[in-house]
Formats: sequence, C-alpha cells, structure tokens
Amino acid sequence: MARVVVEVMPKAEILDPQGQAIAGALPRLGFAGISDVRQGKRFELEVDGSVDDSQLEKIAEALLANTVIEDWTVRRVEA
Amino acid sequence: MARVVVEVMPKAEILDPQGQAIAGALPRLGFAGISDVRQGKRFELEVDGSVDDSQLEKIAEALLANTVIEDWTVRRVEA
Repeated sequence: MARVVVEVMPKAEILDPQGQAIAGALPRLGFAGISDVRQGKRFELEVDGSVDDSQLEKIAEALLANTVIEDWTVRRVEA
Repeated sequence: MARVVVEVMPKAEILDPQGQAIAGALPRLGFAGISDVRQGKRFELEVDGSVDDSQLEKIAEALLANTVIEDWTVRRVEA
C-alpha cells in the first residue's frame, strides 16, 4: 500500500471566486497582508502495488481534475 | 511576498462521502487497486512579510478549516 496525493488547483488565468471571497473577507476579519488566495482540491489515495504512475495520471486527469480550468499534480508520499 | 499552502483534510474518524463516491466509481471506470480516497481542500495564499506564523495558524483554524471535522496544516513554500 502506498499513499498518493493529487493536488488540483485552478489554472492561473482562471478566475477563482471562492479564493477571491476568502481574500476579501480576511481584512474585514482583522487579517492584513494577504494579497491573494486561491482554493483548490487535495485528494489522498491509498493504492496497492499494481497501480503504476501512468494509471495515476489518467485518474487525476480524467476524474479528479477538470483540465479545461484546472492544473493537477500527482506524487507518491510516505504512507 | 511569500507563498503559503494550507491543506485541509477530513479527520480520519469522519466519513468522507465525496471520497467514497470517487473510490466507488474507480473500479466501474476500469481502475483497480485503489482502496481508499479522501477529498480535502488546498489553499494557496500570497502573504507579505508582515504576516507571521501565528496569524497564518489563526487564519487556517478560524477561516479555512472546520476544526470539528477537519485537520489542517500550514507551510511556507518557495514562491
């Protein structure tokens, strides 16, 4: 068993209204000095030894990310 | 300017229906060998030098995570 982390973030050129809402709320709540916030997703997968990197990339690209508007990364981490 | 990453994941003892839905869909879509999926959130913040670690922890704990059901981590990364 290995743990795989897939991170999915909105592309730089895509508006991110959730992140903008957080960035707008921070000064009202007393937190200054934060100029930008972007919100994405993080997945943790438990995979067995039969799953290779190309399968993980297919899963990230086809299922976990919308590649029109999102970038993704896959990495294996210590379990 | 520095970049800060806040990761928010459902606590281990909390059911994660989004992750379970993904884990259930994978075999139907032809991907075997993935035993568990958990879905969380990932935030990227651009912060200036005036923001210290205790402020970042307050932001993560009070605003970005629901600490009843979620764990969070904060780390500074290379810009």
